[in-house]
Order: sequence, then structure tokens, then C-alpha cells
Amino acid sequence: MKKLINDPADVVADALRGMALAHPELRVDHENRVVFRGDGPRQGKVGLVSGGGSGHEPMHGGFVGRGMLDAACAGEVFTSPVPDQVVAATQGVDGGAGVLHIVKNYTGDVMNFEMAAELVAAESGTEVVTVVVDDDVAVTDSLYTAGRRGVGTTVLLEKIVGAAAEEGRPLAEVADLARRVDDAGRSMGTALTSCTVPAAGKPTFDLPEDQMEIGIGIHGEPGRRRVPLAPAREVAEMLVEPILSDLSFTGGEGVICFVNGLGATPLLELYVVYAEVAALLDKAGVAIARSLVGPYMTSLDMAGATVTLLRADDDLLRLWDAPVVTPGLRWGA
Amino acid sequence: MKKLINDPADVVADALRGMALAHPELRVDHENRVVFRGDGPRQGKVGLVSGGGSGHEPMHGGFVGRGMLDAACAGEVFTSPVPDQVVAATQGVDGGAGVLHIVKNYTGDVMNFEMAAELVAAESGTEVVTVVVDDDVAVTDSLYTAGRRGVGTTVLLEKIVGAAAEEGRPLAEVADLARRVDDAGRSMGTALTSCTVPAAGKPTFDLPEDQMEIGIGIHGEPGRRRVPLAPAREVAEMLVEPILSDLSFTGGEGVICFVNGLGATPLLELYVVYAEVAALLDKAGVAIARSLVGPYMTSLDMAGATVTLLRADDDLLRLWDAPVVTPGLRWGA
Repeated sequence: MKKLINDPADVVADALRGMALAHPELRVDHENRVVFRGDGPRQGKVGLVSGGGSGHEPMHGGFVGRGMLDAACAGEVFTSPVPDQVVAATQGVDGGAGVLHIVKNYTGDVMNFEMAAELVAAESGTEVVTVVVDDDVAVTDSLYTAGRRGVGTTVLLEKIVGAAAEEGRPLAEVADLARRVDDAGRSMGTALTSCTVPAAGKPTFDLPEDQMEIGIGIHGEPGRRRVPLAPAREVAEMLVEPILSDLSFTGGEGVICFVNGLGATPLLELYVVYAEVAALLDKAGVAIARSLVGPYMTSLDMAGATVTLLRADDDLLRLWDAPVVTPGLRWGA
Repeated sequence: MKKLINDPADVVADALRGMALAHPELRVDHENRVVFRGDGPRQGKVGLVSGGGSGHEPMHGGFVGRGMLDAACAGEVFTSPVPDQVVAATQGVDGGAGVLHIVKNYTGDVMNFEMAAELVAAESGTEVVTVVVDDDVAVTDSLYTAGRRGVGTTVLLEKIVGAAAEEGRPLAEVADLARRVDDAGRSMGTALTSCTVPAAGKPTFDLPEDQMEIGIGIHGEPGRRRVPLAPAREVAEMLVEPILSDLSFTGGEGVICFVNGLGATPLLELYVVYAEVAALLDKAGVAIARSLVGPYMTSLDMAGATVTLLRADDDLLRLWDAPVVTPGLRWGA
């Protein structure tokens, strides 16, 4: 295993130390492994809490800041945060207007966030609403999931819903919006290589030199099928077609088109994929209203990419364009 | 070779198509493979042109925009842009105040930018000043270089000098500033794996599973030595010590500390490295004034990282903090 780490057991703690040092505008609770906005909690603002296993950076800690998340819980690599972490995050962002939990649909995450929501409600009466993201069209039910997995739509949702919370919208409205974004987003990914979890010390799965996995999960969960390596234009088709078959993206203002790198795939290649995705959408009559290309939801050192399409109306686009100031996404301020 | 591309011969052209589609605020000259600001040329503003071989994205095309570069020439992967490209870029950004060429110190780049500067001067009388970046302390002379290689300081320089040009400073002053930034910056990198150039189809070099290369170049040029894999805190020391030995970074306002990922190294690990670098600087009495952590100057799919320290005064920090609006770096607007 070739990694720039110290002891594999310390990787999350060490990375959080680095994050705190590199981003003094954030506040890191090292004991609970929660990344907070430095200027929180904001009185009267709905608090947005997300989190999940580490190894997907910048998601989620890199999306904490003005116009996005108020806190993110960092679990061990590819492991749900425990309820105590989520409790600390929820209490730490509580500004009296309630808290929204944004949870990717993996069994452990859903269970631990739910337990934390109950604990917080019982202890302090804070109102917590949970929205589960389940946008991966590749498979229903997966290695760690009942129902669809939560992937790329999570990034777009955290941005859009973060802007709405920043505007001071009430909890019920923010939660409705989050559900609306989840309903409007679909994703599908491919892996060219496995990733290696530090504590495991070896690749999560084997993928022969001449094959790729279509429909991969962001923890290396099996996808739909293995196919021989193919040119980017065919790969793009294998990712876009199932998305377009699952939901209609025509009409309205078009889509936010997100081509995400899984870690080891260079930006050069992501732009090649983006060009092919854009050509396919053009042929299908789907207009691209906004785009995002880069490694925003990674899977450690996995080579591969995911495509997310989010059907957008004017309200969503306005919230997408609103200022955001986080380590991972930043514009307008 | 596992890559998300079409024909290896088309990878740069395909990526530029994707870039143009993803960033409508830029203008891409596909024939000459130059990325321009969409709102250029700016009358009365010094034009900033950089470029080099492709495969280092987001550098340089991703740094085109307000407050940074006016144009970037994309050579073939790891190959200097030809003089015609640089001529097209230089003429395209000429707003009557002269043009600065920012060139990384590799023999081909230096030669082709020089030839282009002469051609432009002869054709249109445009004044061109060239600044060569040579900040890599690892080796003097290298596979493609006479003198030190140009690496991470280039990113910081393009940001800082870009802000100065945006303020309307004259060419001589902008060029002086660029030289001052180059003089004040030092870098050193390490590779855990090779990269694979698409046209070659196989790794550029072999690096055994239990070894790393200290002092690597961003095209896989040999460094100082190969050592057994080591924990991040020892690796950080192997990178920081030669930098601190080469130039004094104490006093003044401190440094801009840039921990850069070479492509396949996850952000999680870059933060681990950053924490170790910060600890070493603290011990050495070097204050960190600003930081940047992420994959900004990559080497295709190479696993590894580089450390750059730039000695900063108030003027440099103010220019660093000034608004920048590019695909790769964005803040303040």
C-alpha cells in the first residue's frame, strides 16, 4: 500500500488536524471529529448537518461554510459516524430554528443519524428533520444499502439547500427543498481501478487490467456489470443512458451536469468525459444550465468517474448560483 | 493503460472541448489550443500568458480568468506548446500595455516562448517580457531542464502577479513582481507511483512497491534519491528540510504554504501531509500566513505530493487575497 499517511489508525485524526490548520475559518472538534463553521451556531438559521465515512473528501468536511453545511461528521474511512458524533454536530449547530440531517442512503449512516436525532430530541427538544439522498440508478439494494445508494446528488443538494438555509427559510421549507432536490437528481458511476482503505492495506476488490466496472459504488460496491475498457464516448453513454431512462430531464430550465472524479482520475480525463456527456445530452434534447467538473466526491484513490444530472428550475438555479464559501466549493464571495 | 479517454492522440483536443463547454466564461481557440478569458483582451492591462505541456491540470488552463492569467497554451501531454500557439495567445491578450510570459523552466518551453516573443515583437511590435520560474530545489539540471525546474511556485506566482496586472500596474512592475515571487519561492516533491502518458500507454518509470522517489519532477524526471516508503511525518521532513536549507523563510509576514497533490493522492492524505509540514514549520520558527492544499499542479495519475513555500510580505499577501475567478482557483468574487 502506497499512501502518504502515518499510522493507518490515525489517518482521519491526522487529516482533521491538517484541515483545521489549513482552514482557520472552520472550527474542528477533534474529540468528536466534527468540522463546524467557525462563525456558528447562527441564531435563527436552520442548521445543516451531514457526514459519513471519511475517504470521500472534499465531501463532507470540505463543504462546511457559509452557504452550505454548518457541520460535517467524519467517520472512520468508509464507516458511518457514530451517533455521539452526530449528536455533537447537531447540538453544535442548533440556532433555535431546528436542524436538517442530510444523510446518504447507507444502512449504517441512516441508523446512526436516526439514533442521534432521537437522542437530541429527547435531551434538548431540538427539532431534527432527516433527508436521505438515494440517487444512484445503478442498483436497487447494494452491499451496504437498502434501496438506492446516495452519491453525487448529495454534493449538489448540500449546496442548494445550504443557500436556502442561509436565506433564513424555515425548517419545513428547507427539508421540502432537500427532498425535491433528491427527487430531481440521478447518478451513475464507473471505476477503472479499486481503491485501497488504509486499515485494510490492500485493494478493496480486483479489477483486471482490461476491464472496468459500470455502476460502481463509492466504497467499491459492485455495480451492474464488468465490461472491457472502452473509449470515453462509450463510457459516457453507459453512464448517461441509465440516468435518462430513469427520469425525464427535458423541459424546465435544463440540468446541473456534474462530472465527478473518484480520486485518481486526472482532471484532463474528466473534461474528456464531460465533453462526451454534453454531446449525449445535446442529442437527447436536455439543456445544460450549469456544470461542475472535478473531484468533489472521491473514493480514496479509485480511478473512475460519476455522472450526476439534476433537473433544475429557476429557484434551484438561483440557489445554486448563490454565494458559497467552503474549502471545496467557493464562489460569489 | 486505464484511462477515460478516446484516442490517445485526441486527448488534449477532447479535453479542451470539455473545458470550453464546462466554462462558457472562457473562450477556447481550438485550432491553436489556447484558453482565453472570455472578456479579453483588456485595453490598457498587461496581458499574462502561460502554458506548457498538458497533463498538469488545472494548471495552466484552469487558471485563466479575472485576477489570474489572460491566456494559457496547452501543449501535447508533457510537451511544450509550439511557438505558433504562444504567438496566438500573446496577440490575443495584447491590450496595448505589453504581455508577460510566465514560463516554467524546461528547455523546450523556454525556447518556444522565446521564439514566440521574438515573432510577436517583429510582427506587431508588442512588448513581451518573460519570467522563468525555477523553484524546485531537488536538482540543478534535470532530464528536460538546464538549471532548476519550475514547479509549484508557478501556481502562486500566476495568482499574485495576476492580481497585480488586474490592478493596472505597468509591465515593468508586473515583471519585477514576478521575478520577486520566483526568487521567494521554493519547492520539492515526492512520487509514490509513476504516471502514464496516454500516447506512451505505459508508466513513465518503474518504482518498486516499497519505494518512493524524493525530489521527483512533474514529468517523472528522477529526483534526488529513492527511499523506502516512510510515514508522512518523515516524508514531510524530507521535503521541507531541503527547502528551508535553501532559503531563509523566517521574519517578514511568514509564508504561503502550498501542499499540492500530483494527481492520484487523495485530499485526505494531502491534509495529513499538510499537518506534518505545518508542525515542521512551527518548529523552525516559520509562520504560515496563508495556505493552499489540493491538486493544483498535477502529473496525470501520479501518486505523490509537492510542498512549496513562498516567503510573503504584506504586498504579496494582499495580492494573494485579491479576487480571483478561474475554474481552478476562485475567491472574493
